[in-house]
Amino acid sequence: MKYIKIFSTGGTFDKEFNELNGELYFKKTQLHELLKLGRSQLNVKVETLMMVDSLNMTEDDRQHIIHKCQQESSKRIIITHGTDTMVETAKILAQHIKDKTIILTGAMIPIKFGSSDGLFNLGSALSFIQILHPGVYITMNGRYFNWDNVRKNKKLGIFERITK
Amino acid sequence: MKYIKIFSTGGTFDKEFNELNGELYFKKTQLHELLKLGRSQLNVKVETLMMVDSLNMTEDDRQHIIHKCQQESSKRIIITHGTDTMVETAKILAQHIKDKTIILTGAMIPIKFGSSDGLFNLGSALSFIQILHPGVYITMNGRYFNWDNVRKNKKLGIFERITK
Amino acid sequence: MKYIKIFSTGGTFDKEFNELNGELYFKKTQLHELLKLGRSQLNVKVETLMMVDSLNMTEDDRQHIIHKCQQESSKRIIITHGTDTMVETAKILAQHIKDKTIILTGAMIPIKFGSSDGLFNLGSALSFIQILHPGVYITMNGRYFNWDNVRKNKKLGIFERITK
Amino acid sequence: MKYIKIFSTGGTFDKEFNELNGELYFKKTQLHELLKLGRSQLNVKVETLMMVDSLNMTEDDRQHIIHKCQQESSKRIIITHGTDTMVETAKILAQHIKDKTIILTGAMIPIKFGSSDGLFNLGSALSFIQILHPGVYITMNGRYFNWDNVRKNKKLGIFERITK
Repeated sequence: MKYIKIFSTGGTFDKEFNELNGELYFKKTQLHELLKLGRSQLNVKVETLMMVDSLNMTEDDRQHIIHKCQQESSKRIIITHGTDTMVETAKILAQHIKDKTIILTGAMIPIKFGSSDGLFNLGSALSFIQILHPGVYITMNGRYFNWDNVRKNKKLGIFERITK
Repeated sequence: MKYIKIFSTGGTFDKEFNELNGELYFKKTQLHELLKLGRSQLNVKVETLMMVDSLNMTEDDRQHIIHKCQQESSKRIIITHGTDTMVETAKILAQHIKDKTIILTGAMIPIKFGSSDGLFNLGSALSFIQILHPGVYITMNGRYFNWDNVRKNKKLGIFERITK
Repeated sequence: MKYIKIFSTGGTFDKEFNELNGELYFKKTQLHELLKLGRSQLNVKVETLMMVDSLNMTEDDRQHIIHKCQQESSKRIIITHGTDTMVETAKILAQHIKDKTIILTGAMIPIKFGSSDGLFNLGSALSFIQILHPGVYITMNGRYFNWDNVRKNKKLGIFERITK
Repeated sequence: MKYIKIFSTGGTFDKEFNELNGELYFKKTQLHELLKLGRSQLNVKVETLMMVDSLNMTEDDRQHIIHKCQQESSKRIIITHGTDTMVETAKILAQHIKDKTIILTGAMIPIKFGSSDGLFNLGSALSFIQILHPGVYITMNGRYFNWDNVRKNKKLGIFERITK
């Protein structure tokens, strides 16, 4: 299999604690450390597209993500993304890209915190990406969702299927 | 989907440090903590079959595992297992069980250590189990292997395909 | 020796990550977990006075801390406190209390983060409190400082002696 | 103050998990990482004398420790040491060295485990070393003990005063 591409866009996943001012901020992606920690032997290429809170993600940011996914020669793409607007980005991607398997994932707790779900979600996304048919998906809470059938339940902090 | 069954058998995955004598030992499975950490929303049932080093796993132990997999009403079973004889157990399971998806997984570093690959492997196994066809597989290093096409490279500490 | 009293007032020390809104917040003190982690056999009583960012600590808050230290029957008191105004609180305490050993300490990184200095600082404060003469001190970075001879270097994120 | 010398001798403190054979082993001291984690600003020099389980410490090993303590120009020395024979080494040191403050400390859980007491004990030892008078001491469980008045309670896994 060709390599799996991972685009990092920021989100809670990559937040760190700035000890000089006591605020959360972005420094660099934790993906390399996580892949090492998981002893991944997959052929993976990581590229940071941006480092933003998904609530602050602009229309231009999303166009950039679409453009990068279109240009990408691998048919298998994972995007790490803030959870608050993950569904929105998935929707726009689905409108533009039909021939690739794209999975968006993230974390509820920053990886730099000891108690993060990030390593679990990455293991999950890297597994689903090897098998799922072309389409746009979200992987969280051990599950995968089609882009048009998922919402974030902000009260519970989980992703769930939309019951139509 | 019906629930996913997870059978715990011990292995490095569940080793803890006994501070009274300085040795590694088994106390109880860490699976519940990991599922919580990963914020899993999957319907999962955990059952501990034994707590042994896979190098000490006996023929009787393996018969017990086979029996439990046969009796299990769910068609999707994950077995956490020591890595040293994981391939051997997979082989025996494949001889007896044809109609279920069974994935064996484990860890190179105990979960109780901060730097374990266990959470990554669990996220991976729980994802593959939802999609793979009936058969016996091993999930490690972010990859899945058919039971008859894998070996542990003990020098490198990774699982790899057998090139015939 | 009589018990050592620890008053918790919040600060970075006790900050946690709220996964529902992605912000840092206070839930409860981590002191009990830290004492257990350090396998402390000291006779210690913990009491939470408030849970505030030290930049938001009011004059009333400080009066409450002074009052509690005055009322306290133990002669040995540790106060966990945000680092930004730790020196200010120490100064006011020194004006009102002369007959007790009071140590203020805190953390640059929340304890809930795996990489916190909180356990180190607590081990340090609990040790100094057993030996130092009555007075008000700050313990950070492995050192102890008299209240009138210390400042936080906000650029470096460390406490240092004032060279007069 | 002149620098504080830390001699590392191994013990549970520095044990790591060898993922290739599943056993605990020594690789290198974790002291530098701990000092960084604690944001220590103390003038400290670390030197590894040996990496042994204290149950395997030989008479020659102890002579080497004594020799190094005698040769050391700093009057303040911390020795990280396995807990099982820490009291024995303290006793021999006390017979040979009278003019220095020497503190032995260690850990019940390896530092590489997330749940270690090592960072707490190091913060404690580094604090006591700055104040205690010349003599040989053990620092564990947040307390300090004179060399001739302490024993390890192996049943409880704690150090305690000998009640004569």
